[in-house]
Amino acid sequence: MSGTSAQRADSDLRRQALAAREAARGLAATSAQVRDAGLAAIAAALASERDTILAANAEDFAEAQQMAARGALADPLVARLNLAKGKYDRAIEMVRSVEGAEDPLWQTQRATEIDAGLNLFRVSVPIGVLGVIFESRPDALIQIAAVCLKSGNAVLMKGGSEAARSNRALADLIRRATAAVDGLPAGWLSLLESREDVREMLEQDDAIDLIIPRGSNEFVAYIMANTNIPVTGHADGICHVYVDKAADLDKAVRVAVDSKVQDVSTCCTAETLLVHAAVAAAFLPRVVAALAAAKVEVRGDEATRSLAGSADVVPATEQDWSTEYLDYILSVKVVDSLSQAMTHINHYGSAHTDTIVTEDRTRAVRFLQGVDSSSALVNASTRFADGYRYGLGAEVGISTGRLHSRGPVGMEGLTTYKYLLEGDGHTVGDYEGATPKPYTHRKLEATWQT
Amino acid sequence: MSGTSAQRADSDLRRQALAAREAARGLAATSAQVRDAGLAAIAAALASERDTILAANAEDFAEAQQMAARGALADPLVARLNLAKGKYDRAIEMVRSVEGAEDPLWQTQRATEIDAGLNLFRVSVPIGVLGVIFESRPDALIQIAAVCLKSGNAVLMKGGSEAARSNRALADLIRRATAAVDGLPAGWLSLLESREDVREMLEQDDAIDLIIPRGSNEFVAYIMANTNIPVTGHADGICHVYVDKAADLDKAVRVAVDSKVQDVSTCCTAETLLVHAAVAAAFLPRVVAALAAAKVEVRGDEATRSLAGSADVVPATEQDWSTEYLDYILSVKVVDSLSQAMTHINHYGSAHTDTIVTEDRTRAVRFLQGVDSSSALVNASTRFADGYRYGLGAEVGISTGRLHSRGPVGMEGLTTYKYLLEGDGHTVGDYEGATPKPYTHRKLEATWQT
Repeated sequence: MSGTSAQRADSDLRRQALAAREAARGLAATSAQVRDAGLAAIAAALASERDTILAANAEDFAEAQQMAARGALADPLVARLNLAKGKYDRAIEMVRSVEGAEDPLWQTQRATEIDAGLNLFRVSVPIGVLGVIFESRPDALIQIAAVCLKSGNAVLMKGGSEAARSNRALADLIRRATAAVDGLPAGWLSLLESREDVREMLEQDDAIDLIIPRGSNEFVAYIMANTNIPVTGHADGICHVYVDKAADLDKAVRVAVDSKVQDVSTCCTAETLLVHAAVAAAFLPRVVAALAAAKVEVRGDEATRSLAGSADVVPATEQDWSTEYLDYILSVKVVDSLSQAMTHINHYGSAHTDTIVTEDRTRAVRFLQGVDSSSALVNASTRFADGYRYGLGAEVGISTGRLHSRGPVGMEGLTTYKYLLEGDGHTVGDYEGATPKPYTHRKLEATWQT
Repeated sequence: MSGTSAQRADSDLRRQALAAREAARGLAATSAQVRDAGLAAIAAALASERDTILAANAEDFAEAQQMAARGALADPLVARLNLAKGKYDRAIEMVRSVEGAEDPLWQTQRATEIDAGLNLFRVSVPIGVLGVIFESRPDALIQIAAVCLKSGNAVLMKGGSEAARSNRALADLIRRATAAVDGLPAGWLSLLESREDVREMLEQDDAIDLIIPRGSNEFVAYIMANTNIPVTGHADGICHVYVDKAADLDKAVRVAVDSKVQDVSTCCTAETLLVHAAVAAAFLPRVVAALAAAKVEVRGDEATRSLAGSADVVPATEQDWSTEYLDYILSVKVVDSLSQAMTHINHYGSAHTDTIVTEDRTRAVRFLQGVDSSSALVNASTRFADGYRYGLGAEVGISTGRLHSRGPVGMEGLTTYKYLLEGDGHTVGDYEGATPKPYTHRKLEATWQT
């Protein structure tokens, strides 16, 4: 951890990262009361400074509307910028609900007596310093700050440039509100303003423990390829609905349509429908009609086109199976077996979220155990794969990696653990010398107390 | 996950890695009974083929002794090669104890009712495919294979070249024994033979999920710098004993000496002793005498030399604070406060294992919460930081990273989790449309059943 730091230019970003590293050590040792007082102070400041924040947001919004009018910004981006319409109140409510949540830190995960008077505790601790890059929703800044503070992590944040004024006003408010709380270290939250800052952040592997990028596939892939810091997130969300031969076809239509159209722009939206050959003739015409009614373009393999009517189904190409449309388009393929469906999902999928529709429990279990997905579902829409719907509270991202946090990542996903061993002068020589004492290795119900 | 594989040469290593990927999917879905039958078969084969294995080992050992005689191999390496002297029996016993351990897979970590009939389970699953590189102990191969099989992970292994015959015989035995067990997929274990294989393994980021390297600092650092695959392990083990102003000095001498000399060659051996100024005059002469009696060279800062006698203490240089001696050498420094001790440890340490000796509980808690170490200890020797002593069963490595597994990594450290959501045709539109149903988000005591 030493060495490299001295060689680095002492840029603003470097100073922010080192301040965050220092703050993280202080934050880790704060009590839940202190962190909750910080959250209460943030909620109170958001309420009392509503007009200032909304004025800054209105400026961002007006500029974005002008840019959209001349085609320089997409309309959905503009809409997401707007903090009005109840979003601001919901953000305050969210901070209060994070405040009220259980403390995720210093919880005992396991306790073992090694020998009389020598007790081992595995306890949850913060990860340390996070770098979070998020899209153009200023309410995301509030959510990320709240979850980081509750879980004792310092954070460097970079939001979309369209929301620069809103983000600056919010970060300033949060820093001021928490600076007034006794025991909370300064420097725990920094706002980055430029792409150059982000590039520099990716090099701070001695100061930052984890990067959480949110945004387009290309952007997340760029981050993953350009840093030695661990990255949690997902580049693609290629999610599947598989309709098994033992499916209830009414449920299958409902689940397929909801998975595709409930919101086409999310990472847990379905992009491919796989249909078992035994039910394809009965199911495909029904689902294609339902999708057409929802204005979805269907791209099918040959079997799908011959069974559902080639007039309604565009021919699918190899490329379709690995495309995340994020649009009213669905690729459809007929498979001969559950095993072929799982092979397709494990090959073309992104280990995000995949669902089987079946009434056969044994086949459901084969699917749940056999797909690599971080969320595997039965008879339920892929759109459920979200921190809020899963009941995790606020979500900071969704991970398709296999290590540490998987699937929707909430507060607990921002913690790790350490081992604490408390003895009374115990030495290993007594247990592994000429006349060794035995270890007891007895499970304890005790929890670690400060 | 697609794409890159087609561009890769179909080398032997590539074929082994893809076979492991395929086997991992099968292995993940096996029952505990099947995996335990595999472990029983390994233990039985080890017992019945003892003579063959020990003959192969004797050849490795004889060649190593010749090499050592002409100075081409270090003596401790030769000694570790030898499977005789009870080591072989202990290895069989270890396999049986892994067989008898609780199933680490498909355990419910959390269950939540999202709404009536829609239940979410977070369950433990294998990581997938591991690449494990280990030192010249053939018994390590047996231990790694057993732990991987129990935790449902496929594994590519590379042992030390000095143990080539032993490793080949053992890997062959384990493959044959498990091939005879119904339901265990072939290809779950491969033995790599060359450094070229290791180099190629580091490129298989679409087939291998985690690399666990064991060996010298330089070797582990090389692996970490040369792969995009996540790496769990530790390069350095720079562990500290801090003797606080509130220390019991008898305990402090015992803990310091045991931490240094109980085994000087391990990663949890102490390399630096920090002493609070308030007890330095009373403590240093005692501990330096005890260390001298144990043949430890003491390298001290100026304060240490003036208090303990400069004749017995070599002057320490800046380099000493970041050196892992793995030898009968200890660096010693006097600090003015607990806070200065923690700053030193967090700056020069390797987040491995650090201990405080103190009778003051408040100061102990400050230390436990304030050092970055994956194991933080009170009044106990750093030498306790080991999977066996922690009661984790067999250990596959020690991690100083902050994500996923930290500290000693046993079976549970080779698992991750996935979310399983079981519904009855549930769609998100019903919960987030015009007249939304509420989520119940009720904690369930149920465990997921296959």
